[in-house]
Amino acid sequence: MNINTLAVIGAGLIGGSLIRALRDTNALGRVVVYARTPEKMGAAVKLGWVDQVETTLAATVVDADVIVIATPPALVAGFVAEVLEHCKSGAVITDVGSIKGEIVQELIRTLGNVPEHFVPGHPIAGTEKSGIDAALSRLYVGRTVIVTPLPNTEAQALATVTMMWQSAGAEVVTMDVAQHDAVLAATSHLPHVLAYALVNQLSQMSTVEDVFRFAAGGFRDFSRIASSDPIMWRDICLGNHEAITQMLSEYITSLQSLQKKIASQDAQGLLDFFQHAKKSRDAHFE
Amino acid sequence: MNINTLAVIGAGLIGGSLIRALRDTNALGRVVVYARTPEKMGAAVKLGWVDQVETTLAATVVDADVIVIATPPALVAGFVAEVLEHCKSGAVITDVGSIKGEIVQELIRTLGNVPEHFVPGHPIAGTEKSGIDAALSRLYVGRTVIVTPLPNTEAQALATVTMMWQSAGAEVVTMDVAQHDAVLAATSHLPHVLAYALVNQLSQMSTVEDVFRFAAGGFRDFSRIASSDPIMWRDICLGNHEAITQMLSEYITSLQSLQKKIASQDAQGLLDFFQHAKKSRDAHFE
Repeated sequence: MNINTLAVIGAGLIGGSLIRALRDTNALGRVVVYARTPEKMGAAVKLGWVDQVETTLAATVVDADVIVIATPPALVAGFVAEVLEHCKSGAVITDVGSIKGEIVQELIRTLGNVPEHFVPGHPIAGTEKSGIDAALSRLYVGRTVIVTPLPNTEAQALATVTMMWQSAGAEVVTMDVAQHDAVLAATSHLPHVLAYALVNQLSQMSTVEDVFRFAAGGFRDFSRIASSDPIMWRDICLGNHEAITQMLSEYITSLQSLQKKIASQDAQGLLDFFQHAKKSRDAHFE
Repeated sequence: MNINTLAVIGAGLIGGSLIRALRDTNALGRVVVYARTPEKMGAAVKLGWVDQVETTLAATVVDADVIVIATPPALVAGFVAEVLEHCKSGAVITDVGSIKGEIVQELIRTLGNVPEHFVPGHPIAGTEKSGIDAALSRLYVGRTVIVTPLPNTEAQALATVTMMWQSAGAEVVTMDVAQHDAVLAATSHLPHVLAYALVNQLSQMSTVEDVFRFAAGGFRDFSRIASSDPIMWRDICLGNHEAITQMLSEYITSLQSLQKKIASQDAQGLLDFFQHAKKSRDAHFE
């Protein structure tokens, strides 16, 4: 697979790591990134990761064969619409947003349809760090990228995006948009909101100092994810509110039932509940 | 600090690691352990950790200066009562149970009071493994042991238990019984039941294979604690049911409020909620 010119909009950890991974394949020509503050790209240019930094979208995408929109999900649809005005015909557009339904809905609302050359994508990878200077050439090795093509998505565009991520070392999996958002709500969004809620509750206890001081592995692991970026999680909750609300509702019902078992000292019910969870968990993870 | 004869009842990972740590201090004379199946102690005897294995409680504790009851919490009060019938006058008794209120209440119910030479204790340490063969001499180094003396606890007994754990490398902290159980409910028991409930919910999703396959860091960390021993967690929920029920109730209320914010797309409310949690968390952990 060859990409003569790759354009990246919002080149931070995710976009930068993709650039670095593709650089290592020697199947990549020029890399142009869009940056409102070009100084931030200084090190990336010096290190040879990025060839060209542009401050206008038109100049960024005019020659690009593949355009990766690596911004937060809320900005993706707007950039897709703007990119379409300036890119070559046949250029492939993709994104890395962690929510897909919101992007698709906004494209339909603003453009009337989802462009055939736009392939929604989501690499399941990241680190605690951000910014292009934290980019890692092996971030995607062995990780999964979910792509959610629509019925009108061009097969060639899908193939290009798939091969791009495979070249970066990832396994590419296809899912429909709603399934993606439900799976992410379950595996990522729900755990995060539960962790935030737990930390908030414990921080209100009168013994808060003891609570944090004696936090053993359980709470420490649990709470680490409550250290993520609040703005990002606000946007994820807004963007995927239907799936998250639904799962939170089921979770509350499950906790109410568990609470009854504890309050009534239902030994057998508690054992069944814990055994079922352990069995499911151990069947899937080592 | 010198202990001429240490007796351990229920010498598994926790009791065995204490024996190994004290062995390294050279301030320990003989170690006698109580075991219904003495074969299990074979390796520990061979390695010189244990000097003597007894199958009756009387023979185990008769010469002991310090007696550590390292059984599950539900068995502690029964063993304390039985040990009292056979031990030397002045022998110090302690335990390692993760719940303290239940033990104290049962002692008051059965003996009429908590013996003055019994010092309730709880080392906040462990590994995924169990059994004396998994014992580690440095398990307690840098960890906390909470002791919960009662108003009638003898100062000398408290000092002996404190020095014993300090010799094993731990920091010893004193708390009252109710405070201990509330802090543990918050930092350990609540996170565990939340994790079990999450795993159960996700295991019922029609996309269960995808859910576990695409589980990113968030869910993986979260679910690891749902792999703990179901019998132990049933007993903890029964033993500390009041504190856990109370915290679970507050947590459900908090989730209901969060769910309203998500369903109504309350951007500011969500941002405040997440920012508050991140701030509390980051203030206490690096």
